[in-house]
Amino acid sequence: MAKQIPTKETAESLAKKQREISVSEFFLKNRHLLGFDNPRKALLTTVKEAVDNALDACEEAGIVPEVSVDIVQTGDSRFKISVTDNGPGIVRSQIPKIFAKLLYGSKFHRLRMSRGQQGIGISAAGMYGQLTTGSSTGILSRTKSGRAAHSIHVQIDARKNKPTILKDEQVDWRPEFSPTRDDGTPGRTITSRHGTCVSIEMEASYVRGRLSVDEYLRQTAVVNPHLSLHYRVTLLAKGKAGPKEDAGSLEEEETNEKPWTTFQRVNKQLPSPPGEIKPHPHGVELGLLMQMLKDTSARTLRAALNHDFSRVSSNMALKICEAAGLNPKARPTRIAHRESEALFQAISQTKLMRPPTDCLSPIGEEQIVAGLKKEIAAAFYTAVTRSPTVYRGNPFQVEVGLAYARPGENADLGAEDPVRVMRFANRVPLLYMNGACAITKAVSGVKWRSYGLTQPRGSLPIGPMVVMIHMASVWVPFTSESKEAVAHYPEIIKETTFALQECGRRLSVYLRRRHREAEIERKQQYMTLYIPHLALGLKEILELSDRQEKAVVDNLHKLLERTHLEK
Amino acid sequence: MAKQIPTKETAESLAKKQREISVSEFFLKNRHLLGFDNPRKALLTTVKEAVDNALDACEEAGIVPEVSVDIVQTGDSRFKISVTDNGPGIVRSQIPKIFAKLLYGSKFHRLRMSRGQQGIGISAAGMYGQLTTGSSTGILSRTKSGRAAHSIHVQIDARKNKPTILKDEQVDWRPEFSPTRDDGTPGRTITSRHGTCVSIEMEASYVRGRLSVDEYLRQTAVVNPHLSLHYRVTLLAKGKAGPKEDAGSLEEEETNEKPWTTFQRVNKQLPSPPGEIKPHPHGVELGLLMQMLKDTSARTLRAALNHDFSRVSSNMALKICEAAGLNPKARPTRIAHRESEALFQAISQTKLMRPPTDCLSPIGEEQIVAGLKKEIAAAFYTAVTRSPTVYRGNPFQVEVGLAYARPGENADLGAEDPVRVMRFANRVPLLYMNGACAITKAVSGVKWRSYGLTQPRGSLPIGPMVVMIHMASVWVPFTSESKEAVAHYPEIIKETTFALQECGRRLSVYLRRRHREAEIERKQQYMTLYIPHLALGLKEILELSDRQEKAVVDNLHKLLERTHLEK
Repeated sequence: MAKQIPTKETAESLAKKQREISVSEFFLKNRHLLGFDNPRKALLTTVKEAVDNALDACEEAGIVPEVSVDIVQTGDSRFKISVTDNGPGIVRSQIPKIFAKLLYGSKFHRLRMSRGQQGIGISAAGMYGQLTTGSSTGILSRTKSGRAAHSIHVQIDARKNKPTILKDEQVDWRPEFSPTRDDGTPGRTITSRHGTCVSIEMEASYVRGRLSVDEYLRQTAVVNPHLSLHYRVTLLAKGKAGPKEDAGSLEEEETNEKPWTTFQRVNKQLPSPPGEIKPHPHGVELGLLMQMLKDTSARTLRAALNHDFSRVSSNMALKICEAAGLNPKARPTRIAHRESEALFQAISQTKLMRPPTDCLSPIGEEQIVAGLKKEIAAAFYTAVTRSPTVYRGNPFQVEVGLAYARPGENADLGAEDPVRVMRFANRVPLLYMNGACAITKAVSGVKWRSYGLTQPRGSLPIGPMVVMIHMASVWVPFTSESKEAVAHYPEIIKETTFALQECGRRLSVYLRRRHREAEIERKQQYMTLYIPHLALGLKEILELSDRQEKAVVDNLHKLLERTHLEK
Repeated sequence: MAKQIPTKETAESLAKKQREISVSEFFLKNRHLLGFDNPRKALLTTVKEAVDNALDACEEAGIVPEVSVDIVQTGDSRFKISVTDNGPGIVRSQIPKIFAKLLYGSKFHRLRMSRGQQGIGISAAGMYGQLTTGSSTGILSRTKSGRAAHSIHVQIDARKNKPTILKDEQVDWRPEFSPTRDDGTPGRTITSRHGTCVSIEMEASYVRGRLSVDEYLRQTAVVNPHLSLHYRVTLLAKGKAGPKEDAGSLEEEETNEKPWTTFQRVNKQLPSPPGEIKPHPHGVELGLLMQMLKDTSARTLRAALNHDFSRVSSNMALKICEAAGLNPKARPTRIAHRESEALFQAISQTKLMRPPTDCLSPIGEEQIVAGLKKEIAAAFYTAVTRSPTVYRGNPFQVEVGLAYARPGENADLGAEDPVRVMRFANRVPLLYMNGACAITKAVSGVKWRSYGLTQPRGSLPIGPMVVMIHMASVWVPFTSESKEAVAHYPEIIKETTFALQECGRRLSVYLRRRHREAEIERKQQYMTLYIPHLALGLKEILELSDRQEKAVVDNLHKLLERTHLEK
């Protein structure tokens, strides 16, 4: 068929084509924005969204998390992903919307540090499964107080962005976890009274390597030492549809019956629960201020300022009203445009305490070094946790860890390769899109030459090194809905740079010392080589006995050692 | 105030916190996704969205576009941006939704090459203006058939993603444009009977340089030779709030009364109007196929396949039904899940013609070279327009242009700097986020060393060169809603690579020839230097007369020239 010949449009003909676009339709067409660009990434994104939700739910309920990830190949390019947790469970009425409606959740309308924040992720994974296989998302959930578990199957009605319920039953189900001990033998099965299991089937591809589910889960275990994570991939028999291997990572042959891999928890200590905060007045724009005054439940302007914002005492609220020339007892809903501009000016000219920062829960320098030591063979480790600070009114905190290997110490870290950057946001590993990330930009922006590394202009430094960076915030500004890279806010780049520079200075001290030691070593070896010749010469000149010659050699060696120690 | 101590949540307490998030709220909080990360970018994004809409509207209506961009500073960090076009105008009833509702438009639900495609941009700009200044978006529009123009002021109700109309009047207005002639004198004012003007006031910042509005408009003029573009920036007097300058770009002092700058059109020829196409069966996933069968207006499966897809003849539709074991006369709405899987299999195993590609409207090799010559001083130019091809069922086409300067020929192009990459998608310049773009990745991925350039591993090549790349498609997959970078689809990277390689081969021919010529030149100069000495020596040995000596010199010179020519 030929193309439709376009006609010349008029205002009237164009008007007829205008239509509302549902947010599901939008993301269905733009699915790469959500991390579903290709089958390999789709698998990772799905696991990531499900595990993030599981961890958030456990921690909010004060439960030490037990999570299992079960990936089963069901066809040439089809996988079923099931993620189970021992969290608080989900009440029946909420299940359809949580799993089959985009932009629905509990984390968006609050300022609190958590992994999820958008209310998109898991519904998007289900939508992608539905798009590629026509299947539905299966949820099993049992709450503490519930008598039975609910088994619900949902699909998303993309045109309306609403869930369609295909199955809704009460079943007898409890989450079970099958650990594997460190020696490889199976441990005792763990059963929980409550928890959730979500299963999604989709077109996907399982590939090992830097961007794999394996790597994501490994890194997740490192920054969540309180998590026990059980992981299993079951592939179809080799002849039928083998897994794709990354070049150079040949491993044992796949069998149908792969056992669970368990990343055991290091301790049962949950991260200190992060608090929820109110918006800080200095991070609020004029338009938002006007909206907040319209929406407040407070009866007076003074009370609204005091109650709805962080760091505004009743006294301070009075001062702000006075500075703006407004009546502190005025109805907040009746403030006119011009008056709110005066209020906005008064706020921006008032000195206020910075937002509270105890709402953040960093990993900590000690834990970062421990995590790096566990995973990266290297000779030098260091870590810096910066004090919390603020971007656009949102508290955030940057942590940097660094591991530097001796030559040949770590086969993964080439001395001629760019350093490896591991990025985390609110304890979630970020694997894709490092080129677009403010964190990578900060690493490239540091002058590593002054710390003893080579560095092509504007690029990552070269060396056998891992740089690990964690950004914790009540609101991480990601460059896309797939949450893979942090946006370039200057404050974030600045804080990351400072932390990197501090680690860099420590690295340069280490490298200088190592260089000096190597130099001395080299000189000493050189001397050692010539001492016998020197002694022989002396022996002939001074006609020494063999015993005297040996004494000379010994004394020269001792002299050399002393010089070495003194240096 | 201290942070709120978090309590341990239960399934029930969590359920109470679940809420729907409106798409406006989502993008208000994530405004950097839409290109509103900072005041400088906000200005560019707003101009870009308004100009894109103006050009799309003009071209769809078959009108040679006349567009003006008027930027007026209204405060320390406040600007009012007004963009006027001579397009078909907008009917009154559509104005509020088009300018104050996210995800509303005419371009999303179709497969046709256009600049806009999401129905977000201009409403987002208005929303940002409202957020930062509390102001509203003003629209003036007059249609061909309308008796008067409409003046409408709207704001967006973010909680509901709906427009609020603040003003709605009939006025006497026609778009006017004030060109400046090439010699700098004002030309005759142009008045149009129809068109639209949108004005938004916002917090912004005007900065010159690579990421500026100036650069965006300059590049827009280059790839739209049929566009006349009038541009003016009026800043507050220097003492009050001067413009920020990019380091190194000192220009004449700003005055209050800056005249219009006009980018004159090169010709009145509109790009051949791109057609709209139907989805190609090989780009449709199972889930989408099922949805399309549900939604079709065709009565039989065969007719549905024939009518709703591109490249499926009635005969081919019959074959597909037979291969799937389905009745061609079956009601399409009654096809079950399992049957649609069979249908999907049958489609993917059927050979079909590739989608029609005459729906694309490339710039063309000749126009690209002309554009480069106009803007970039260089010694060598070339361009390649690839044949159209397909990603995910969407036709697309890549064009590459290349300009290489001799040493010292172009002060902007340093011989030691990475080459400059100019990216375009559907004739729109992409300035930000080059690190995240598939186009940049393709440029870095080409082995430029074999074409005679130096190139650090995995980076852009080094040299006094501009690479210009245009991707034209019925659907450009951007990495974010701000449409600044193309997502990494392998097909797109491959096509771009091929085009770059072809240009690279031509470059290497040029560079080899230039190298050879320089070599010969050098040798010749060397010889020229020694010919007189040689002649003098011969004169002495052979006792030649002065005339004979001169003859020897002349002959030697001629010999040299002949050798040169022969080489």
